[in-house]
Amino acid sequence: MNIVDIIAKKRDGDELSSAEIQFFVRGVVSGSVPDYQAAALLMATYLRGMNRRETLDLTLAMRDSGETIDLSGLPGTPAIDKHSTGGVGDKATLVVVPILAACGVPVLKMSGRGLGYSGGTVDKLESIPGFRTHLSIAEAKEIVSRVGAVLIGQSGELAPADKILYALRDVTATIECISLIAASIMSKKLAAGAKRIVLDVKCGKGAFMKTRARAEELAHELVRIGNGAGVPTTAVISAMDEPLGRTVGNALEVREAVQNLLPQGSMLDVGLTGPPDVRFRELSVELAAHGLHAAGVADTPEECVRLAAGSLASGEAYRALERIVAEQGGPSTLQQVIQSLPTAHTILDVASLTEGVVTELDAEKIGRLATEMGAGRLAKTDSIDPAVGIELLCKTGDTVAIGTTLARMHLSERCLNQSSAYAERLLAAYNVGTGDVALLAKRPLIYCDIS
Amino acid sequence: MNIVDIIAKKRDGDELSSAEIQFFVRGVVSGSVPDYQAAALLMATYLRGMNRRETLDLTLAMRDSGETIDLSGLPGTPAIDKHSTGGVGDKATLVVVPILAACGVPVLKMSGRGLGYSGGTVDKLESIPGFRTHLSIAEAKEIVSRVGAVLIGQSGELAPADKILYALRDVTATIECISLIAASIMSKKLAAGAKRIVLDVKCGKGAFMKTRARAEELAHELVRIGNGAGVPTTAVISAMDEPLGRTVGNALEVREAVQNLLPQGSMLDVGLTGPPDVRFRELSVELAAHGLHAAGVADTPEECVRLAAGSLASGEAYRALERIVAEQGGPSTLQQVIQSLPTAHTILDVASLTEGVVTELDAEKIGRLATEMGAGRLAKTDSIDPAVGIELLCKTGDTVAIGTTLARMHLSERCLNQSSAYAERLLAAYNVGTGDVALLAKRPLIYCDIS
Repeated sequence: MNIVDIIAKKRDGDELSSAEIQFFVRGVVSGSVPDYQAAALLMATYLRGMNRRETLDLTLAMRDSGETIDLSGLPGTPAIDKHSTGGVGDKATLVVVPILAACGVPVLKMSGRGLGYSGGTVDKLESIPGFRTHLSIAEAKEIVSRVGAVLIGQSGELAPADKILYALRDVTATIECISLIAASIMSKKLAAGAKRIVLDVKCGKGAFMKTRARAEELAHELVRIGNGAGVPTTAVISAMDEPLGRTVGNALEVREAVQNLLPQGSMLDVGLTGPPDVRFRELSVELAAHGLHAAGVADTPEECVRLAAGSLASGEAYRALERIVAEQGGPSTLQQVIQSLPTAHTILDVASLTEGVVTELDAEKIGRLATEMGAGRLAKTDSIDPAVGIELLCKTGDTVAIGTTLARMHLSERCLNQSSAYAERLLAAYNVGTGDVALLAKRPLIYCDIS
Repeated sequence: MNIVDIIAKKRDGDELSSAEIQFFVRGVVSGSVPDYQAAALLMATYLRGMNRRETLDLTLAMRDSGETIDLSGLPGTPAIDKHSTGGVGDKATLVVVPILAACGVPVLKMSGRGLGYSGGTVDKLESIPGFRTHLSIAEAKEIVSRVGAVLIGQSGELAPADKILYALRDVTATIECISLIAASIMSKKLAAGAKRIVLDVKCGKGAFMKTRARAEELAHELVRIGNGAGVPTTAVISAMDEPLGRTVGNALEVREAVQNLLPQGSMLDVGLTGPPDVRFRELSVELAAHGLHAAGVADTPEECVRLAAGSLASGEAYRALERIVAEQGGPSTLQQVIQSLPTAHTILDVASLTEGVVTELDAEKIGRLATEMGAGRLAKTDSIDPAVGIELLCKTGDTVAIGTTLARMHLSERCLNQSSAYAERLLAAYNVGTGDVALLAKRPLIYCDIS
């Protein structure tokens, strides 16, 4: 087998055999296929596409390029994995995983870091003093056995082919290809060993997939791969036009997750200004319910929603996160977590200059602004400031007057001199005008389920 | 300017600006654009194409990536360059350049080495003992001034971007793209400084361009680039279904060139079995006449043909090659050249097993066989045996009986054990059957002129 012939085949739009795809992926990892040949094949794949069989084969070859985790034999139901394609303010993992653990569904959740305007769960967790995201797989499994779930960073040992190919795609303009995106996501998920997978495919301004059609295309591909690999997989397509929840920024998002986990009647002050965001809570419950259903905890989706919401109301999910954090080196209570989270040097309120209804709140603009404020990375090697970020007091559908505080910027000292430019950009992310409040309130949160 | 954006632009089928193309080519040479990004852009270019403006810009940027030669001020007409896209048995340079020199047209001709089934003029020249193909540009120009022409190898200083990109295209399945082929050819030609360019675009089984349509497409692109760069350029499209002339193999081809240069009445025995091939002679005269016309030596094509043929008949072209060879370190007469050329260990005749008319003689099969016999290279680092090769005593249109010698194989000692397999392959390159001899004799040699 010859890599030049394989490149030529894909270049001409022909289907690659399983053996050819395996040859390529193994060659990428062993180094026998140099990066320039991999880059040529990636571009040919971008422009010519891969069919379902090829995409599944690529995923499996990438899954098998390194270590794979065996999650058989954990106590509870089959192990579940939850994955979001990424967005702005998406801290759902910090609520969904505790709900699942509280309901007896084991979760060994590996998350990534943020890059560009999209945040990463690992960065959020690392804003908790002492929290360790680098655990050995053995240690992580041991924690799952004991407390039901663990939240760790992506292991470099899993799907090393993806690491190489992703880095190459990033610098060769071959990121936005459904087959390659799907293979990248699912190779890591499948290597991580879960028996069921629930996917949250984000769609809209602040998501990688800007349109419903693209999001559905990706979701179908992801679900097909999971099922094709023998791991029952479902997906929801959820709105990411405005940020998810009321906070963007790492410590702020941990506060918001805790706020949403607080049991009814709790008086804990999480240090945020606004009330919980009902849409964020609703999405978290829905995703958790999908996981419960996939794990077979209850027969009907409605019963799964009830169980998930019940674990929030009872405080069981709250206590599950508390145990996870404590096991992973963080403070022993969530109250201590809240007290120990870093706070920004200065908080500045940004008020509306006009009156009307918020008809739009651009997630990408907010994400980019938060990144520049220090909450995210433009390059992989950038360091982040866990304390900075934005609280969104007003969101789409809210009625505002002149002078109403739309948002609060949590700024680091080094960014203070740019605060007025930031405030202007923050205002520009809001569209305040005339709109049907009732209609805006009914805007879809979850577009559809794919399974 | 950012190379990833440039790749994405071409990936999406958009036109690259001159500045973007220059940025890419400069980056390739300086190393700031690594090979994996160049490979991605090459594949995107292969699949999306480049328009005429982009192709010209790419050529000029590649021309300007290294040294360029100034051929102003040479004695005689404007300097001419002649280039063939390569084929089997194509030794036309060894006849055309002496004709041009004999007619007062200066030629600094740089040639390449053979690779694959296609031969290279430098390899042919190096079969002449003492002949030096590596000269400095200053020395080469000095020889042109004195004897009218020089025949040297490609300088690595010329169009270094082409060297890098060609090597990359070779291993990334991006060779066969008209824009990239044309830019590669013309960047070197333009850097070599000739004031007029005559191109021989080969078409058929033994050529890179297998169809008339592809050959015309390439010829038009080459001519457009030359003219666009201010260097009047013309092309002929010539047949390469069967090998050109009667010999394939380096020393054999030098013998054949000398045979065709022999003035009327010369008794020199060049060491070949067959008579001169009239079609090879005709093509050489036509190409030389195109050069004479481009240089303004005579006003009409007919007059140019007469001049070219006259320089052959008078022996002036013969003496021109004699002077060139002597100046470049070879023997001082062509008679000595013939005597000093290497001869093969064994010559084996291959006879026809059937009777009929040769309706086809597959140039690619002959080229591949000669390469395996040691006349060419499969890899760039392979060494070649100048003495080995094939004499084609019968060609398309010839009537043969059972037992008629079709060809003679000139074999090295180490290949003797494979001689029967070679003979079988040689027979397989001939198609002997029923055919219209008169029609076959009239098969086109030059399909058309492009200017």
